[in-house]
Amino acid sequence: MPDTSIGIFDSGVGGLTVARAIIDQLPHESITYVADTANQPYGPKSIPELRACALEVMDHLVDLGVKMLVIACNSASSAVLRDARERYDVPVVEVIHPATRRAVRATRNGRVGVIATQATIGSLAYHDAFTAAPDVQLTAVAAPRLVEYVERGETMSDELIDVVRDYLAPVRAAGCDTLILGCTHYPLLTGAIAYVAGEEVTLVSSADETAKDVYRILHDRDLASGGGATPRHRFLATGDSQLFARLGRRFLGPEIDAVEVAPVGGTTFNGDAGRRNEKEPT
Amino acid sequence: MPDTSIGIFDSGVGGLTVARAIIDQLPHESITYVADTANQPYGPKSIPELRACALEVMDHLVDLGVKMLVIACNSASSAVLRDARERYDVPVVEVIHPATRRAVRATRNGRVGVIATQATIGSLAYHDAFTAAPDVQLTAVAAPRLVEYVERGETMSDELIDVVRDYLAPVRAAGCDTLILGCTHYPLLTGAIAYVAGEEVTLVSSADETAKDVYRILHDRDLASGGGATPRHRFLATGDSQLFARLGRRFLGPEIDAVEVAPVGGTTFNGDAGRRNEKEPT
Repeated sequence: MPDTSIGIFDSGVGGLTVARAIIDQLPHESITYVADTANQPYGPKSIPELRACALEVMDHLVDLGVKMLVIACNSASSAVLRDARERYDVPVVEVIHPATRRAVRATRNGRVGVIATQATIGSLAYHDAFTAAPDVQLTAVAAPRLVEYVERGETMSDELIDVVRDYLAPVRAAGCDTLILGCTHYPLLTGAIAYVAGEEVTLVSSADETAKDVYRILHDRDLASGGGATPRHRFLATGDSQLFARLGRRFLGPEIDAVEVAPVGGTTFNGDAGRRNEKEPT
Repeated sequence: MPDTSIGIFDSGVGGLTVARAIIDQLPHESITYVADTANQPYGPKSIPELRACALEVMDHLVDLGVKMLVIACNSASSAVLRDARERYDVPVVEVIHPATRRAVRATRNGRVGVIATQATIGSLAYHDAFTAAPDVQLTAVAAPRLVEYVERGETMSDELIDVVRDYLAPVRAAGCDTLILGCTHYPLLTGAIAYVAGEEVTLVSSADETAKDVYRILHDRDLASGGGATPRHRFLATGDSQLFARLGRRFLGPEIDAVEVAPVGGTTFNGDAGRRNEKEPT
């Protein structure tokens, strides 16, 4: 078991920031990353549709043989965590709770901000995660356009700084001293976000915090690789693997040389336009 | 000027964690990284000897044409910052002040820990940096063995956890809620350090904080690259470039395919064994 890989799931490339934090901290571990690019973005999907997509792909990932499952997608985390924990025998980690735990510890004035996709904010997943911290005042802002900037590698421009400034206006108005980057794309905008937020704000990256959780669980459950075999980093996409490879290099570096096609995800929804159109909100 | 590169200097591979944070945040920027591997480690050197080595290599780096200089080495930062600021026309950033600024903002109970090499701790550079925060109680611990673990890729083992636990004992005993990773090698041990330090401690990475400073300065001084040309990442070492390339891949990823030999550093101290032996403490 220790010598099987860590399974990481996301709808696209964003979860690669989580993968990279894991590879950094655990260079002897193999990882298997599956992106459901055929069905991305998950943001506009209904919860049942998102759940169906995610579980199909995660079933495939677990079938490949993993010792742990990381749901590296904020939108999917709250929708499928319960199902995944019931369905799989391996430990399941997601990205919302590790970031929440850190933010609660980091804040000095009890005012925490979170920026994320519309889907994540709309799901109230972060509000729910903060339930046990009634003294924390949460300011949640949907920042949908940031993903575009990350994906085209635009991390410093006056336009981007203006966009970030607009998104962070409510966070700054509320006097937040801690800000959760609640989308796995955002760590690649740390420079711009820190610039606008200012020195006094502690940024919490769900990618980094999730990697710490993975480390802790592997250690405590004796699941760490012995380090004998050469680790293997395997990347699969249900949709366009070329696009995934190209974008992925921005996130993880040139290690992504080959992306395999996963024989799931696309088959269910791609060939069935009727079902997709029927369910997909505009 | 905006289209020249960001110069990054370190005695070895550690500063590559700074380089990577910069590349992540500023994917359009070219960087030129020079490691003074012929004279590393800087830790055991006297301040005048360290200064002579560092300035020679930084002179070469600035001569290559850079728009900014990053001293990505905690040991060198305090020894040569004044000289570098006087000597060069480009903005100079180092790693101690950005981490200090962040830690002062992050701590809730005013108790901050710092782990670093013996040289950094012995120089009292962090104590000096915290001068303006008299209410902060600093617990500084030399953690010299951690570099070995990073360089051999051992990030999770009972032995390492025990070593980290020993080093962090005074930090935990002091009740620090914030811990500075005061050596650019340490971000690669975030998993182990966070595991031992516990959820309640905020880790401050000098690599990440320095990258934020670089971002801020490029933006505020209008030095950012327009993004037209393909960025170039160039790596030079004054000593064994093969070893640097091999170790460097652990820090930066396989982007380091070619390491050039820098025609400085080695010439001064390598061929002059008498001088080295005379000055080098045991």
